[in-house]
Amino acid sequence: MNKYSVGIIGATGAVGTELLRVLEARDFPISALHLFASDRSAGKPLVFRGNPITLETLVQESFVQLDIALFSAGSEISKQWRGAVKLAGCVMIDNSSAFRMEQGVPLVIPEINAGDLKSHNHVIAVPNCSTIVMLMAIAPLRAFGKIKRIVVSTYQAVSGAGAKAMRELETQAHDYLHSRPIQPSVLPHPIAFNLFCHNTAVNEAGYNAEEWKMIQETKKILHDDDIQITATCVRVPVFRAHSESINIEFENARPSIEEIRSALAAFPGVKVVDDRAGNHFPMPNEATGQFDVLAGHIRHDVSNPRAIDLFVSGDQLLKGAALDAVQIAESLIEQKLLRH
Amino acid sequence: MNKYSVGIIGATGAVGTELLRVLEARDFPISALHLFASDRSAGKPLVFRGNPITLETLVQESFVQLDIALFSAGSEISKQWRGAVKLAGCVMIDNSSAFRMEQGVPLVIPEINAGDLKSHNHVIAVPNCSTIVMLMAIAPLRAFGKIKRIVVSTYQAVSGAGAKAMRELETQAHDYLHSRPIQPSVLPHPIAFNLFCHNTAVNEAGYNAEEWKMIQETKKILHDDDIQITATCVRVPVFRAHSESINIEFENARPSIEEIRSALAAFPGVKVVDDRAGNHFPMPNEATGQFDVLAGHIRHDVSNPRAIDLFVSGDQLLKGAALDAVQIAESLIEQKLLRH
Repeated sequence: MNKYSVGIIGATGAVGTELLRVLEARDFPISALHLFASDRSAGKPLVFRGNPITLETLVQESFVQLDIALFSAGSEISKQWRGAVKLAGCVMIDNSSAFRMEQGVPLVIPEINAGDLKSHNHVIAVPNCSTIVMLMAIAPLRAFGKIKRIVVSTYQAVSGAGAKAMRELETQAHDYLHSRPIQPSVLPHPIAFNLFCHNTAVNEAGYNAEEWKMIQETKKILHDDDIQITATCVRVPVFRAHSESINIEFENARPSIEEIRSALAAFPGVKVVDDRAGNHFPMPNEATGQFDVLAGHIRHDVSNPRAIDLFVSGDQLLKGAALDAVQIAESLIEQKLLRH
Repeated sequence: MNKYSVGIIGATGAVGTELLRVLEARDFPISALHLFASDRSAGKPLVFRGNPITLETLVQESFVQLDIALFSAGSEISKQWRGAVKLAGCVMIDNSSAFRMEQGVPLVIPEINAGDLKSHNHVIAVPNCSTIVMLMAIAPLRAFGKIKRIVVSTYQAVSGAGAKAMRELETQAHDYLHSRPIQPSVLPHPIAFNLFCHNTAVNEAGYNAEEWKMIQETKKILHDDDIQITATCVRVPVFRAHSESINIEFENARPSIEEIRSALAAFPGVKVVDDRAGNHFPMPNEATGQFDVLAGHIRHDVSNPRAIDLFVSGDQLLKGAALDAVQIAESLIEQKLLRH
């Protein structure tokens, strides 16, 4: 079996840390692992498979030694090094939003559209975390016919805003419980025991950027420009799993609850949690640390004979980011789309 | 001006405490105030308008001295004393769900359907808190034409489960931050840094009782059996304000954003918080302690040319319960529907 030289750019961040753990957990075929971080962290070690690996600073030549570069250091860094990656014949798997909607850049959830990887030109984008968590539950339902419209409201963890936002939630919760004033710094509003419209710019249509990503990316990933979506994206005081309330309207008839449960359960990466008697449905505390997206609270929408409601929770740092990136790398290997 | 003898049943609970504060804040015309609580609390004093009032135990004769009995001690207590209230010629304003859907019992949000009070037969029901918060933003929009369908997802505070649930959130947050195990007791699942499907029984259609209340009560309050609604009700780690993501589909054309803002701003009890440039929309921390329901993040739904999206936050203990009850009492006085 071939082994590959892998780099993680942004190795000390919230997603970077999970990339290390996911590569370990999935026994990824690695010949060499290079970890990159800011000048501030360079020289310090991180542990991978029991061995310390020294953090490096990224330079033009870094990519020559790499087959796969997992980027998770923000859009600007991804844009800055795209040319060098291609020149070196390496493949960038990018967790930022820099190239997601660019024509010719595959935007991939491997369980759904791994075939899109074939046309990669050295850059592949990992979709937005909320989009991934939603589509893992939507994709299997397309077997029942065309989906006409989605109305989604999210309950998003702070991990999507990075490790600093996770610490901010913790600090603010401490402060609140000790009756000290709360000082937002990473996020724009208090997050402890509060919630707010997702902290991204609001466009002319009134949607914040996160909502707009869910709308646009869904069409690209599903290869369906006709699918209609509206999204409301909200940050909640949860550390690292996103939840979503999803209303799905089919073009024609709708499947039975049993058919929906079976289709979701059969789909790789989805676990059905749908215990009505026990009122036990997907919760972020149970989705945290899991590779699977949890789906449940499945019911026929009483307001529309062709619609259903369901609720999902998925680990934002895993399937929402690091796991999806590693699965893309695995799929590139399987489809023989790397230079080896 | 006439003054009235008022009783609060369940005066030490989360809503009971707020009833005292709301009666003070609104300078309610009170001749005598009687406070009732469980045997455990009887004999202890609560302060009203600077004076201590001793907690009493409820007996059959208690209602003879009362014009208005504000009930907030759960459905069983309301059912138990309904006969005595009527026999005494008193009027029960009930915060429980005991009589809400009973024919002949007005279910009232005074800004919306105060006229329904005319037919009261000594019992008036305060609607479910989530229903109230939602309808405060829905009602003013009916001026633009018939509303066909509502898709709502809630972000509900723990106060709806009572003072004990509020303490549980605080205790669990402490435990979580100190890496101690979390022990749910009042709520069925951990609530600190978590969220879950509303803690009420799930019916055969798959909806929990809270969702079902929103669906049924809306039709009764708006006098509109045709309005279609689906709801997803979720508990979030917030202390006392409910938020809701609402998608509203009109039967015909939809109003402009400016028309919607104006209609909401002009409606008593609603405050528009809709600053797109500043990404400042309704948040529970700003709704807490306010009589007004906050409405914003108003936009035309890109998935449906006749639909809009908006977001609301309202204090569950105030407009969602205590304030609505006191406003009902005020409206009874104004409409001369009490025995005075």
